[in-house]
Amino acid sequence: MGGIADVARLAGVSKSTASRALTGSGYVSEDTRLRVAEAAASIGYVPTTSAVSLATGRMQTVGVLMPTVSRWFFAEVLAGVQSALLERDLDLTLYTAPPGTADRRRIVEDFLPRRRFDGLIVVGLEPSDAETACLERLGRPVVSVVGEPEHSSVVAIDDVQAARRATEHLLALGHRAIVFLGGDAAAAHWEHVDRLRLRGYQQAMADAGLDDAARHVRADVTMPGGYAAAVDLLSEARERPTAIVAACDEVAIGAIIAARRLAIAVPSELSVVGIDDHEYADMFALTTLEQIPREQGRAAVDMLVRAIGDPEVTREDRRLQARLVVRSSTAPVHPAMSVAVSDTGLSRS
Amino acid sequence: MGGIADVARLAGVSKSTASRALTGSGYVSEDTRLRVAEAAASIGYVPTTSAVSLATGRMQTVGVLMPTVSRWFFAEVLAGVQSALLERDLDLTLYTAPPGTADRRRIVEDFLPRRRFDGLIVVGLEPSDAETACLERLGRPVVSVVGEPEHSSVVAIDDVQAARRATEHLLALGHRAIVFLGGDAAAAHWEHVDRLRLRGYQQAMADAGLDDAARHVRADVTMPGGYAAAVDLLSEARERPTAIVAACDEVAIGAIIAARRLAIAVPSELSVVGIDDHEYADMFALTTLEQIPREQGRAAVDMLVRAIGDPEVTREDRRLQARLVVRSSTAPVHPAMSVAVSDTGLSRS
Repeated sequence: MGGIADVARLAGVSKSTASRALTGSGYVSEDTRLRVAEAAASIGYVPTTSAVSLATGRMQTVGVLMPTVSRWFFAEVLAGVQSALLERDLDLTLYTAPPGTADRRRIVEDFLPRRRFDGLIVVGLEPSDAETACLERLGRPVVSVVGEPEHSSVVAIDDVQAARRATEHLLALGHRAIVFLGGDAAAAHWEHVDRLRLRGYQQAMADAGLDDAARHVRADVTMPGGYAAAVDLLSEARERPTAIVAACDEVAIGAIIAARRLAIAVPSELSVVGIDDHEYADMFALTTLEQIPREQGRAAVDMLVRAIGDPEVTREDRRLQARLVVRSSTAPVHPAMSVAVSDTGLSRS
Repeated sequence: MGGIADVARLAGVSKSTASRALTGSGYVSEDTRLRVAEAAASIGYVPTTSAVSLATGRMQTVGVLMPTVSRWFFAEVLAGVQSALLERDLDLTLYTAPPGTADRRRIVEDFLPRRRFDGLIVVGLEPSDAETACLERLGRPVVSVVGEPEHSSVVAIDDVQAARRATEHLLALGHRAIVFLGGDAAAAHWEHVDRLRLRGYQQAMADAGLDDAARHVRADVTMPGGYAAAVDLLSEARERPTAIVAACDEVAIGAIIAARRLAIAVPSELSVVGIDDHEYADMFALTTLEQIPREQGRAAVDMLVRAIGDPEVTREDRRLQARLVVRSSTAPVHPAMSVAVSDTGLSRS
């Protein structure tokens, strides 16, 4: 495998012309470009990305910052980002660490300022003031997936609306004792998305005149977290809700597993609705609001590449509507179970 | 924020001395190093990694190639790799694509040869001949996690031994009708690790004189895959096994969920053992062989960094023993259920 000098010699051009032709970093006639490409192919020459970077001033790399890859949503966003970057010949530099950890601080304070990337995709960031300041100082385009960032472009579902629709689905089935399960305002991991979803639930309950019945039960936003919290919640026969809006599908599935363990039938004794359309949703016959995080990852790359190409591009805010997918984890409230709250005078569907 | 010239001026040294001091790429007295570091700190100067690379000839980056991040094992290995790289000030360039896809081919043929990394960690690769050839041509150190690579160093559990012990645990409980669930020799994704585990199961069955009773039931190596295959398997009352060795915990959990749906009690009517100690294992009270992929990821970084620092370092093969964790998904075979195979004359424990 030869070097750029061999390519130049074979093509009968100078080294700098050969370099321009191969990296696309300046004008070269189409004829010359073809001759250089053929010469390179004939000796198996591939320009290293460092060479491309020096020629173009670009790193050909996009940074991705996320709290974890161990949850479905993040893994799916990452898969979408990866495939969209591969199509564009761009590398992916990954930085994962949960908020509040020493690793996270090092990433934001030490790693990101070195700028080994042309732009950054931030997934599920709950930025502290210090983090926001660091990100702004980067001077590189940033696109967020989820959240409500002030300065960067964003692609996300409308989380408030998704939780509203989940709650309205249960209200329409006659449920009144509906709990919102998941998230913890006091925890370090009280993510923005969980807060938005809680808000959507609260709005739907308020619109139905059920402000006082609204009830948020804390849970880690994971399947075991939903399971553990649901075991406690459902063991209390007197306080038992007839329906649960879960912060996400993993929590919803944990709640369904808990109900099975306690021999509470889903959906005849307990309705459960999630948000995500997780890969396990079908296995648990879970009614949910569908989002497609893989597509969000791809859309984030689209937006970022536009911003890298043109710094003047305006901030984009792309909000996707989640679609209600009705499976069999939700059903009309059992008549015997709605008595306790029927005194409120609300009509049942 | 100034540049290297400002740092040099403030410290009263030449630009090249300032560069050497900041990148650690050549001799500088301790006194000078301190003065340069102070000057850099006073104006907030951080050397870009490109500058470090030019000075040291290293990219300060490690490539990671894996089929997916959407399964527990891969996500955990990646988390271990990430944290170990952060500690060493190294970046992580991620390449994910399942074997046999166009993305996978592009990664191996186009992306990796550009060598934007000092070494490569390959997770769960089932390399085709073409891939192996490409990886060897890279001329960079490679460490594999899982598998039995001929040329690269490897860190993995002893998969054969893990499946043997899982099977022996069931045999000791008196089970004879034991099925191995998961993997598909005919599928594109018949991973090496599944093949090794099947072999361990077959060895244990053979050692117990049960060669003829050994039975491999195909399933996608995922939770829904285990669920779907187990629903079919367990619905056949006549052929129903008393115990399942699952290719991994995700398959085992899918089988437990299937058993619950079919009202087959675990463990009294069906014992299930997995391999992994997945984060959900405890929630499902799953007996399993424990591995800690996060530690395997960290160990892979250790081995790779040693190989990058010294090309003469010998190939390492680190095999970890998985520990049996007994929870309550396994129990002695139900006397009534062992009748069918008790004719074989094997004693029951």
